[in-house]
Amino acid sequence: MSEAVLPLNDRGLAYGDGVFETVLVRDGTPLLWDAHLARLTRGCERLGFPAPQRDELDALPGRAPAGLSVLKLIVTRGSGGRGYLAPADPEPRLLVQHLPFAPAEARWREGVRVRHCALRLGIQPRVAGLKHLNRLENVLARNEWSDPDVAEGLLCDSDGRIIEATCMNLFWQRNGRLETPRLDRCGVAGTLRQALLAERSIAEVEAMPERLEQAEALWLGNSLQGLWPVTRLDDSNGHALITWTIGETHRRLQNDAQRLLGYPSLP
Amino acid sequence: MSEAVLPLNDRGLAYGDGVFETVLVRDGTPLLWDAHLARLTRGCERLGFPAPQRDELDALPGRAPAGLSVLKLIVTRGSGGRGYLAPADPEPRLLVQHLPFAPAEARWREGVRVRHCALRLGIQPRVAGLKHLNRLENVLARNEWSDPDVAEGLLCDSDGRIIEATCMNLFWQRNGRLETPRLDRCGVAGTLRQALLAERSIAEVEAMPERLEQAEALWLGNSLQGLWPVTRLDDSNGHALITWTIGETHRRLQNDAQRLLGYPSLP
Repeated sequence: MSEAVLPLNDRGLAYGDGVFETVLVRDGTPLLWDAHLARLTRGCERLGFPAPQRDELDALPGRAPAGLSVLKLIVTRGSGGRGYLAPADPEPRLLVQHLPFAPAEARWREGVRVRHCALRLGIQPRVAGLKHLNRLENVLARNEWSDPDVAEGLLCDSDGRIIEATCMNLFWQRNGRLETPRLDRCGVAGTLRQALLAERSIAEVEAMPERLEQAEALWLGNSLQGLWPVTRLDDSNGHALITWTIGETHRRLQNDAQRLLGYPSLP
Repeated sequence: MSEAVLPLNDRGLAYGDGVFETVLVRDGTPLLWDAHLARLTRGCERLGFPAPQRDELDALPGRAPAGLSVLKLIVTRGSGGRGYLAPADPEPRLLVQHLPFAPAEARWREGVRVRHCALRLGIQPRVAGLKHLNRLENVLARNEWSDPDVAEGLLCDSDGRIIEATCMNLFWQRNGRLETPRLDRCGVAGTLRQALLAERSIAEVEAMPERLEQAEALWLGNSLQGLWPVTRLDDSNGHALITWTIGETHRRLQNDAQRLLGYPSLP
């Protein structure tokens, strides 16, 4: 069901009626592949259309260029239906792109400055955690700032709870305990987050953003970039709230991520 | 900037980063055209990219087939940018479809049965009122029922306020006063709704769904179908909450809509 062009009546374009994945591929080998496929399949199930066949998907990373690249997969519900009403027998469309990629290595070492976004995520448990195609909130949030020294923006939900960054998940250590926001009402449950949860004791919590200012360490991460230690957190006007010095605590969790993604260990 | 096919890197597909309009066209003449263009322009402004030129848009309805049809316009931010970060100089893409259309005339006369949906709309003031491409909530809500006797589903927001139907706006009369939900936190501000607000005294209110059960009359409507009087409202399990008999009150507001859309007056 793979396609090279998109008909204008595709429901992915019309309504964002679909899901996507961006997979790190190194010399034809995908990283965290099972986690990506599991989320893709869960997304299709939750939206109510069949996921692509596993063997069709498994053949894709091998077609990537040599070295590092990103395999972007989009699966839409396809065409048809009457308006928002989905077709009874959907014929999903799989769209594949291979994109060049290099991680921001300096950010592993030096850390990043981040800020709070003004936009608040709407609460929608029906699609929370999924990487669906309705990403206008992320676009608007990411475009709240243009300063290239600010690497990411943090997002709260409409009840004020801290959730994620525009394209990364959040992790922090507080009183020696690792925490990450629960994502059952909004946000995207990243595959690196899932892999870290599987091998480390990390509590999924409900927290207000002030919790971050009590943290010994704060990280942002996703399955393409690994983990970035945060050295400075600004409010949504760009004024510093708190700074951190990178230490051993940061490196321990970072090196878990480096290993999961096949990146070199940090000293 | 009109296009016939869509590149896979278009941000409309990737993120729902765009807006759309569905315009009723009769023999080349668009109905409520200024209201559609105003909403389209407002949407592009709110998302932060230039709207298509007015003269390019004005040329489109004349290319519609004879009789009734729907002109569907999609404007996306185009390609480019880095992930969610928008390109500094976006080149928006205008996508045009002419679709056959006939209104559900029997519903004008006989009215419709509707139900409450279980899904609740997320609150997002930044895009409230716009007809943007992030419509997964509408798709999921519309697919909560398959009974063809149920014409529409009503949606509340995550705070429980009544907002709209899956593809229509809501109007009711209570104590002789016309009301419609405020749409400053979520929902789509329809062009028929706007036209009715401009010529009738209709209060935009915050209301819980129980308010509907106190109404003398309830209508659903949009710029393609006109207004449907509601004869029965069900809960989200399909059990009747209240029924109405269609009367003169219904016909008065309906006939305003019929006139605005060039449909015949109802007796």
